[in-house]
This record gives sequence, C-alpha cells and structure tokens, in this order.
Amino acid sequence: ARPRVGYTYNSEHDVDSRLSLLHELTVADHLAVSVSVSESCSVYDAAVTMFLEDTGTLFVVNDGRLVGVLSRKDLLKVTLGGGDTKAMPVTLAMTRVPHIVTITPEASLYDAAVLMVRHEVDALPVVKNDDTGTGFAVVGRVSKTTITRAFVELGQRYTV
Amino acid sequence: ARPRVGYTYNSEHDVDSRLSLLHELTVADHLAVSVSVSESCSVYDAAVTMFLEDTGTLFVVNDGRLVGVLSRKDLLKVTLGGGDTKAMPVTLAMTRVPHIVTITPEASLYDAAVLMVRHEVDALPVVKNDDTGTGFAVVGRVSKTTITRAFVELGQRYTV
Repeated sequence: ARPRVGYTYNSEHDVDSRLSLLHELTVADHLAVSVSVSESCSVYDAAVTMFLEDTGTLFVVNDGRLVGVLSRKDLLKVTLGGGDTKAMPVTLAMTRVPHIVTITPEASLYDAAVLMVRHEVDALPVVKNDDTGTGFAVVGRVSKTTITRAFVELGQRYTV
Repeated sequence: ARPRVGYTYNSEHDVDSRLSLLHELTVADHLAVSVSVSESCSVYDAAVTMFLEDTGTLFVVNDGRLVGVLSRKDLLKVTLGGGDTKAMPVTLAMTRVPHIVTITPEASLYDAAVLMVRHEVDALPVVKNDDTGTGFAVVGRVSKTTITRAFVELGQRYTV
C-alpha cells in the first residue's frame, strides 16, 4: 500500500530535528549584558547597583578579571545582620573564584540550564580566558530569566 | 520520483507534534511546594523563613487566603533601609492582592513562562478559588527554576 503523505516519515529523523531546535540555542545568541562592580565597592553600593540595573546577580571584578559573584540571597544575608552596609566590603558577601560556576559563549543554552539546576544558582557569568591567561574576562550573563525567555520563544515558534 | 523515506513528511504534522511536547507540560505536573507566612509575621521572620526553606518567593496568607507575595528583592529593599526588621510587619514589604499575577493548576507551563516574562516576576502562586468565593487558596508555586528544569527535561528527552 502506498503510504499516506503526512504520516510516513522516519521517526529517528523527526527526533533529530526536534532535538536541534532546543540544543541549537547557544549562550552567545542569548547573552544578557553583565553588570559588574569593583572589588573595592561596599555592600550598600552593590545593592544600590543591583536595584538601579534591575538585576539579580552582580559580578565582582578586579582589573577586568572575575573575582566573585554576588546574588540577592548573598546580599540579603548580610543586610539582615543589621551591620553598617556602607562600611562593609562587597568581598565579605560574595562567592569567590574558584567556587563559581562559569560558562563560555560557545556552549549551548541547554548546558547553561543544566549547570544552573545542578549548582542551584540563578545566573552564570559568561567568560573568556583573558589575554594574559591569568583569569576570566566576563563577556556577559545567562540566567533563569534567559532560559524562561528561550522557553517562551520555542513555544511561540509552534503555537496552535 | 519516489520520495525518500525520512524526508517526505507533512511539515504541518511535524510542527503539531513538536508543539505538543512543550505545550503539553502543565502547571499541575510541575507544581512546587509553596512556602507561606502569616500576615502578622515580621520582615525579619519572613527573611529567616526564606533562608530556611531556600526559596526566593514567599506567599503571605490570612486565614488560608492569599493576601500578598514577597520576593527577595522586596526584602532587600527594606533591609537595606537599615530599620528594625523585627518590628517591621511583612505587609509593609509585600506586593498586595490584587497587584499579583496568579495562575491555575490547569494552565500550561508555557502560559506560566509567558506571564513571568511579561510581568518580570520570578515566581507565580498557583491558586484555586476558595470555597467561599472570597479569595484565592494557594495550592503551589511555579518559578523560573521550574521552567529551567522543564527546559532541561525537554533537552534530555532528545539527547544526541
């Protein structure tokens, strides 16, 4: 019998084409602008920057190299203590390199999502090795917001 | 010419089957446990609850009805002010009903993602109308973490 067009196709191929949809999304194509503060910044100034830039994660840099990551959770922990946040250095509250999960622009958004779920973080610094080879230069940010937007875009491409 | 198996299929049909993958995910199937505090709670106690339960969003309830939502951002805003957080009622920091975006268990995860992107919130209370019809009863929570996990699951179902 002659197969009906529309239902006779290799399901292996179909799986592959679905796969590429999600797995072809790259970090580079979904890069958000990173917001950084200097290592010499106070906890108070970092929090103000977070509000002004409306971001949930700040990167702490020294001379262009990534030295730490600061989340809203980190900030809340120290502000709740009730000390003088203007006198408190941001380095006291941040998570330090090398205890930071990073990703490169060439990676897939899927890999970024896996890392955020596994390490229970809301955002990842997107980094390149800097010219001197002594550390990471931050080129952007991906977050759970990035993934949520990508999820919506995938859904929109196949609306009923 | 006879079409090659594997490449001759109705692309409309293919789109529909892809579509269902993402659009068939429901809020009910991805419900996270909601963490609630009472309306009479202090800002300090709410923040402690947030840390103990390791959540980014608390729901404020009164007599089982949803009255507000409290995010890390809301808390950070008031703790940064430097007042006595133990004397400060949580109602001062929260976003109040009806200025809250909610979703029902029957909705799709796609709809939840669209709402979170559009309203720039990290989580939504999943609600049912309560028996008296006077308000919403919270039955769970969906967040950008829920969406990130679902994104990973979709990707895993079609690994290379």
